[in-house]
Amino acid sequence: MANTDSVNVRVLSLNCWGIRYLSKHCPQRYAMIGDMLCREEHDIVLLQEVWSEKDYLSLKRKLACSHPHSHYFKSGVIGSGLAIFSKHRIHDTFLFRYSLNGYPYMAHHGDWFGGKAVGMAILNIGSLTANVYVTHLHAEYCRDKDSYLPHRVVQAWELQQFIRHTSAGADVVILGGDLNMHPEDLGNRLLRSYTGLRDSYLETAKFDGCEDGMTLIADNPFISKKELLPFEKGIRIDYILFKGSSKMDVYCDFMSTTKGSVPDHPFPYSDHEALTAGLRLETHTSTETGRDRQSKNKDSAAGKLAELVDIVTEARTEVKVGLHCAESMRYTAKRTGVMGLALLFLEVAIATVPWLALGAEQPFPRTSFYLLAALCFAILLTTFLLYIFYTIELKSLQGAEDQMRLAVGSLQEKLRGFPLAQPHNAQRRPPKAHEPSAFDPEE
Amino acid sequence: MANTDSVNVRVLSLNCWGIRYLSKHCPQRYAMIGDMLCREEHDIVLLQEVWSEKDYLSLKRKLACSHPHSHYFKSGVIGSGLAIFSKHRIHDTFLFRYSLNGYPYMAHHGDWFGGKAVGMAILNIGSLTANVYVTHLHAEYCRDKDSYLPHRVVQAWELQQFIRHTSAGADVVILGGDLNMHPEDLGNRLLRSYTGLRDSYLETAKFDGCEDGMTLIADNPFISKKELLPFEKGIRIDYILFKGSSKMDVYCDFMSTTKGSVPDHPFPYSDHEALTAGLRLETHTSTETGRDRQSKNKDSAAGKLAELVDIVTEARTEVKVGLHCAESMRYTAKRTGVMGLALLFLEVAIATVPWLALGAEQPFPRTSFYLLAALCFAILLTTFLLYIFYTIELKSLQGAEDQMRLAVGSLQEKLRGFPLAQPHNAQRRPPKAHEPSAFDPEE
Repeated sequence: MANTDSVNVRVLSLNCWGIRYLSKHCPQRYAMIGDMLCREEHDIVLLQEVWSEKDYLSLKRKLACSHPHSHYFKSGVIGSGLAIFSKHRIHDTFLFRYSLNGYPYMAHHGDWFGGKAVGMAILNIGSLTANVYVTHLHAEYCRDKDSYLPHRVVQAWELQQFIRHTSAGADVVILGGDLNMHPEDLGNRLLRSYTGLRDSYLETAKFDGCEDGMTLIADNPFISKKELLPFEKGIRIDYILFKGSSKMDVYCDFMSTTKGSVPDHPFPYSDHEALTAGLRLETHTSTETGRDRQSKNKDSAAGKLAELVDIVTEARTEVKVGLHCAESMRYTAKRTGVMGLALLFLEVAIATVPWLALGAEQPFPRTSFYLLAALCFAILLTTFLLYIFYTIELKSLQGAEDQMRLAVGSLQEKLRGFPLAQPHNAQRRPPKAHEPSAFDPEE
Repeated sequence: MANTDSVNVRVLSLNCWGIRYLSKHCPQRYAMIGDMLCREEHDIVLLQEVWSEKDYLSLKRKLACSHPHSHYFKSGVIGSGLAIFSKHRIHDTFLFRYSLNGYPYMAHHGDWFGGKAVGMAILNIGSLTANVYVTHLHAEYCRDKDSYLPHRVVQAWELQQFIRHTSAGADVVILGGDLNMHPEDLGNRLLRSYTGLRDSYLETAKFDGCEDGMTLIADNPFISKKELLPFEKGIRIDYILFKGSSKMDVYCDFMSTTKGSVPDHPFPYSDHEALTAGLRLETHTSTETGRDRQSKNKDSAAGKLAELVDIVTEARTEVKVGLHCAESMRYTAKRTGVMGLALLFLEVAIATVPWLALGAEQPFPRTSFYLLAALCFAILLTTFLLYIFYTIELKSLQGAEDQMRLAVGSLQEKLRGFPLAQPHNAQRRPPKAHEPSAFDPEE
């Protein structure tokens, strides 16, 4: 199928771990990263965790010749950490901030302050339009009891929505970033199935890198082996995904990752490994496109749709878990606030009653009175802020759940257009009682 | 040009003013709105300020027959207020929350709590794909000294970005809502010029409604005439905008607004007037599309590009004004915080020094000590929260400004492709010194 009209694009993605003064050897590592990018001259460089704009600007200066076009996405309190460098002109950019991103009071996890988002840049590669996305989802701190899972699932949901809805005019779509999800995690399946994005590690013709394409490995000196457990050797959470269009086919010719060390340097670029993918874009002739291919793929399309319905339903369930959790947290905040208020009233009553019964001795030592009052006010303020915060969280979760319900309905409607798909779906697990079946004859 | 293959779509947009317990005659007005929608059977109904989900649900029940498909967009603390009802199936929805939307401490204006956003719904009208958008931008409380102008300009910028990037696959694009901008306001020009959306009031063949298409009129009993000044009769701030695609032409056959009263009812539907537009969608044959039309319109395209460059530059200037303002507010918050901290140290010093110089009498009355300490802590907490808030505001403004700069560069690059356009541009005002000229030969 290969024809002469092909374009090669090399893409790099790296989580730079660029927290000034906190990340180890930050300035030295940025210098190494800059040198490497200058030397390697990738077409597109997608960076995450470039938390300081100063570091972005120094990279920009260094890469002025190799990558004359760049953009830094600003968001949240300390920024989104997302940056893109390109050899090809960036024509347009757009940023989508995820509606959920952890909790501000979990300051030691810090994700909330990062204003996590997905950044899009539209490049012209020759005569082709490439929509390039870079993102960084909420970290997973404890896999067994991951309280951020609903947030990450909603982020994955919004990510796939954003890519699906903004890429209609693109000839080629590329997404790079730290998704903080294992290859078969719910959010990852949701993203790949809904958008049709393909994983360069799974698609590559040649691979050179860590075992199983891992990007957070035990051999990296910045990684605490204990935190990786139960995955002794490491995990794969950084990705370069891609897809073509009705006009273009995209192939991954090679892929590589760094391996926890850099020759002639005492430490690696980051705590994450850098990923490089060599993509080949090929126009396909009009005879290959359209109806021919559609009819060829009708069966597999129905199977994929049925699978997608299952995945979205699973995501809905996860969001519902998050909803229950947020509701109970909001209830707790409300109850605590009411208790704070009751305590304040009680205190005022105890202090006031003897004062009204003139002459009686004041039973309340003044110091304790003020301290207790301050405590009550602190409780009231904190619970009020938490109540507001959980209300926003609830609205976002409910919004995502509504959208998922609507999407499942629409997918099931589409599935009805594939009568041959029924045996396909019949093999799958039966739908839950409260879920309408994809082929409910009564509907 | 009219051909037989045409579809008629009637669209309604109404700001419902639906603040439970605060808006006048809220339940009665919702009943009237429900009756009217049921009777009129518009294809698409775009509502704003439906602040309570209960009101949405009761409308949904009432319109179950006339408008079987609907969606309510959830966001912020009290929701986005946006709802859509449709006779045609809604296949997909997506919500974009504006990055800036007023200040939480301006509680009497309340916009911040509304979580203003733009909602998108993808409908199938027959075989056509319609992208329908509903939005509500930040209100203008004082036209002479509008401190929210940079926020509204950024919202208009994000709105045009969202529509432009998500509508590539649509056959027809419809936007309805309360933009809180006069027809020739900067944000409105930005939106129309960048997206190519056309104003149904300006395009309609027939019009029946208020003078000059006004949607907030002095004759409406819910409107305070004083607040409208200097616009005695009213203003036009609600719109139905539309555009076609390479496949479809869209025409506005008629447009109407309510006129401040409803026959047989003691009061109108809302403080805003309702807008109805009758759109006609027509496929154009392949001979009309593509290059023929392109070459025909080359000159006007260049003129429009040059105009767009000017508008985006004007928007950048406005955002820069907002940036300076946010910077000075953040500086004030920081300075006040430092003063609060200094006061706290001073107090502790005054109280501690005599205590260290054993035996000296405590000069500080205990009550004043605690009250002053509480004041200091309150100042510190407030200024800390404000500092965080202004930092987020700054990042959003900077982000928008970066995107605008990039867009201007890209537009100027495109303009270079139209050599005939030079005289066009030459007539326009000269670019500012710090702006590279669209035709700078040195670049």
